[in-house]
Amino acid sequence: MNLREFDAYVERHAAPFIADVAEFCALPSVAAERRHLPETADWTCQRLEKAGFRTQKFAVGDSPSAIWAEMGEGPRTLLFYNHYDVQPAEPLDLWESDPFVLTEREGCLYARGVADDKADLLSRLHAVEAWRATQGKLPLRVRWLIEGEEEVGSVHLAEIVARHGQLWKADGCVWEGSGRDEEERPLIYCGVRGMLYIELHVRTLERDLHSMLGGVVPNALWRLIGALSCLRGPEGRVAVEGMRERVRPFNEAEREALSRLPFDAEKRAASWGAPRLVRGLDGQEALEELLNQPTANIAGLWGGYSGPGAKTVIPATAHAKMDFRLVPDLTADEAFRLIAEHLRRHGFDDVEVVRLSGLDPARTPVDHPVVAMAAHAWEDLGAAQPARYPTMPATGPACIVINQLGVPTVMTGGVSWPGDRIHSPNENIREADYYTAVRYWGRYMARFAAHSL
Amino acid sequence: MNLREFDAYVERHAAPFIADVAEFCALPSVAAERRHLPETADWTCQRLEKAGFRTQKFAVGDSPSAIWAEMGEGPRTLLFYNHYDVQPAEPLDLWESDPFVLTEREGCLYARGVADDKADLLSRLHAVEAWRATQGKLPLRVRWLIEGEEEVGSVHLAEIVARHGQLWKADGCVWEGSGRDEEERPLIYCGVRGMLYIELHVRTLERDLHSMLGGVVPNALWRLIGALSCLRGPEGRVAVEGMRERVRPFNEAEREALSRLPFDAEKRAASWGAPRLVRGLDGQEALEELLNQPTANIAGLWGGYSGPGAKTVIPATAHAKMDFRLVPDLTADEAFRLIAEHLRRHGFDDVEVVRLSGLDPARTPVDHPVVAMAAHAWEDLGAAQPARYPTMPATGPACIVINQLGVPTVMTGGVSWPGDRIHSPNENIREADYYTAVRYWGRYMARFAAHSL
Repeated sequence: MNLREFDAYVERHAAPFIADVAEFCALPSVAAERRHLPETADWTCQRLEKAGFRTQKFAVGDSPSAIWAEMGEGPRTLLFYNHYDVQPAEPLDLWESDPFVLTEREGCLYARGVADDKADLLSRLHAVEAWRATQGKLPLRVRWLIEGEEEVGSVHLAEIVARHGQLWKADGCVWEGSGRDEEERPLIYCGVRGMLYIELHVRTLERDLHSMLGGVVPNALWRLIGALSCLRGPEGRVAVEGMRERVRPFNEAEREALSRLPFDAEKRAASWGAPRLVRGLDGQEALEELLNQPTANIAGLWGGYSGPGAKTVIPATAHAKMDFRLVPDLTADEAFRLIAEHLRRHGFDDVEVVRLSGLDPARTPVDHPVVAMAAHAWEDLGAAQPARYPTMPATGPACIVINQLGVPTVMTGGVSWPGDRIHSPNENIREADYYTAVRYWGRYMARFAAHSL
Repeated sequence: MNLREFDAYVERHAAPFIADVAEFCALPSVAAERRHLPETADWTCQRLEKAGFRTQKFAVGDSPSAIWAEMGEGPRTLLFYNHYDVQPAEPLDLWESDPFVLTEREGCLYARGVADDKADLLSRLHAVEAWRATQGKLPLRVRWLIEGEEEVGSVHLAEIVARHGQLWKADGCVWEGSGRDEEERPLIYCGVRGMLYIELHVRTLERDLHSMLGGVVPNALWRLIGALSCLRGPEGRVAVEGMRERVRPFNEAEREALSRLPFDAEKRAASWGAPRLVRGLDGQEALEELLNQPTANIAGLWGGYSGPGAKTVIPATAHAKMDFRLVPDLTADEAFRLIAEHLRRHGFDDVEVVRLSGLDPARTPVDHPVVAMAAHAWEDLGAAQPARYPTMPATGPACIVINQLGVPTVMTGGVSWPGDRIHSPNENIREADYYTAVRYWGRYMARFAAHSL
C-alpha cells in the first residue's frame, strides 16, 4: 500500500478541507430546536454529489431526513455512519467565539458540531476525494447513512432502517465518534451498552395533607423510596430479578482486550470529580462493571416541597426518572418487562412505570476483521498502540446497524480528544487530528477493500 | 350562676360585635409578608384599652410585638393566648369575596383570619365587656398574651416569654383555636405534639456526571435514599434508636378519655382523601398512633433532573426536608441528637443534617381542673358532650406556655368548625358560633373564678 501521493494531496488541500468544515459548521443544524435541518441535509447531499456520490433522502412523517449515499463498486461494501445535526449551542455567553463561525485558536478549531460530528463526516468525504484524485476509482463500494436527529435520540432511525434497510447493507460499518485518550492512544470501541429510560409515578393521596397525619396516612415519597430500594441491592447493583442473570460474560477475546486496557481508579475518579469509585472498584473489575454490567441509575427524583424554609406537608405524589444501562443479552423490552414484574412481585402494583425510550445493547466481536483493520490502519500511521474496548459504556443507535441491519460495526478514526468539549461551550478539534483522520480513512478503505471478510 | 342578663346583652350587641370583627379583619396583618403588623398591634391594644385593659408591647430586635394585657383582681388569674397575625390570602382568585372585607353569606362570615384567630380573640374581649356591663367587676384577673408571628412559627415567643414571663404567670391558660367536629361535638385539647424540622443534604460528586458511569460512581440520590431508609422501619414507624423508647404511654385518665373518642378509620380516610390508613389502623390504635407516637415524615425530596423527557445524569447532590412529630418525653433537642447519632452509627457521616426549627411536645393532664371546667362550661350551654383529646396531633407554641411558663393550658371554646377553611381561600366562621363563643367565655370565667385550682 503506497499512499504517499494520497498524503501529499491531503497536505496540499489543508485550506479547502478546512473551508468545507467551516461551511458545514456555519449551518446551525440544532436537532432539539429543529433548526436549519432541511437546509443542512440539502447541503450535505450537494457536497456528497459534488464528490461523486449518488444520494437520496428518507423521512418518516415530518422527521428530519436521513441521507443515503453510495459510490464505487467491488465485492466489498463499507458503510459510514454520521449525523448532520448538532447539540444546542447554549449557554452562549460561555463561548469564546461565535459557535457557528469556525475559529482557530492555538491549533484548535472551535465551533458547535465540529467534533460531533461534522469534521468526522467530512474527513471521510475528503479521504474519498483524495483517493479518487490520486489512486483512481474507489477499490470498494462506500455507502453512507447520515441522520439528522442523533442528538435527540435517533427517534426515527430504527423505522427508516426497517423500511429501507437493503440500501444500507454492507460488509462492515464505521460509526461516528471515538478519538484519543489522555495518553494519545487511539480508541477503538466494538459496541454500545443499551439503555432503558423510565419514569416511576406514585400517588398515595388525593391531595397533599398536613404532616400531623404523618403516622397514619401513606406518604408518596416513602412509597416511592420503597419501590426504588427494591430495584437495587445493598451493594449498589441492580437487584431486579432476571436482569443480572442475562449478562453474557466477556468471552476470551474480550477478556484479553480488557486485560490490555488502562484503568487507574484513583486517576479516573479524580478526572470525574468523584471522591472514589463505589465498593473500592479498581482495574479490570472496575472496567468490567463499567462495560459489562447493567446499572440502575436515578437521574432525578422529586416530590413535596423544595422551597425555602419549612412546609409541613405529606406529599400526595412522587416521581423519579431512571436509566438502566443494558449489556448483552438483556434487551430494553426484556428489561422493562422484568422491572415491571419485579415491582409487582414486591407489592408495588400501585407504582406506575412509564417507558420513555429504549435502545438495545450491541457488540461486534473484538476479534472481528473490521476491528482488526481499525487497529492496523492506526499502525499504518505509526500511531500509539490503540486501546480496544469490547464496548463503550455509553449507549447509541449503533445497535440499529449492528442488530437490525446485521452489519459488524466499529468506532474508530474519529477526531475527538479529551479536551474536545462535545455538547459543551467551546467544542473543538485539534486541527492536526483532522489531517490524520483523512489519512486514516485512506488506510482503512485500502485495508477494507483488500481483506476478505 | 345566672347569666341571663349576660346572654341578653350578647343578643343585643350582635351588630357592634360583628362590626368589631369586621374592623379587625380589615387589617391585612400577614406575618409572612410582615404586612401591617405594627398597625394591627396598635389597633389591638387600643381596643383592649377601650374595654378597660392595661396593655404593653414587647419585641425582640425588630420582631413583631407581643402584647401583654391585664384587667381585674382576685385570687385567680386566667391567661388568654391569641395572635393578631394571619396567613397570606393568596391565591386571591379563589376567594369569592375580598379576603379583607368581612362578608356574610348564608350564615357564615368570610375573611382571612376570621377563624384563625381574630374572632377567637374578640369573642373573649366581648365576653369581658358583657360581664362588666351586666355583672359588675371581673371575678378574676385576666391576663392576655397576644403575639404577631404565630403564622410564621412564633419565632421570638420563647425569648419574649423568657425575658418577661412573670407578667404572664397565671393559674390556667386557654389557648387559641379548637371548635366543633363533624358531629357538632365541642373539641377540647389538652396539649400539642412537638416537632423537629430538618433538612438532609448529600453530595457524592463535584458535579453531575453522565449516567454511563452509573455502575461505578456514587449517586447522591441513592445515598440519600439509603440514609432516609435507615430512619424508618419497614412498618413505616420511626426507626431512630432511642426515639420510640422515650414515648411516655398514655396514663389511665388519658386512656379513659381516648376510649370515649370517636374514630372511624374509613370515614376519616375518606375525609382526608386517603384510600386507607397505613397498616390497617383503626379506632383506638389509630388514635394512639396519631396522638402519642413520633412520626418521620418526608415533606420534600429533590435531586437531579425533573424536566420533560430523558436526561441521563448522575446527580451530585440530593436534598430532603423532614418533620418529626414528637410526644412526651421526647424533646426537639433530644430528637435532633438521636437522629444525627443514628445516621452516624449507620455509616451516613457524609449526610449533613440541618435543623430548621424545633418545638417540644407539651400536655396538661386530661383530668386537670382547667380541662374539667372547659367541659363544664359547654354543659352550661347545653352543648353536646365534648370530645376531650389528651393532645392535638399538631404542633404549636403552647409548649412555651405549658413547659416554659408552667401554666396548665387547654384549647377550648373556639369558633372553628370543619368547614372553616383556615389557611385556605374563603376562610370563615358560622355567625351563630360567634355568639355561642362569647356566652361560653362568660361561663368559663365564672367557673374559673369560683373553682379552687
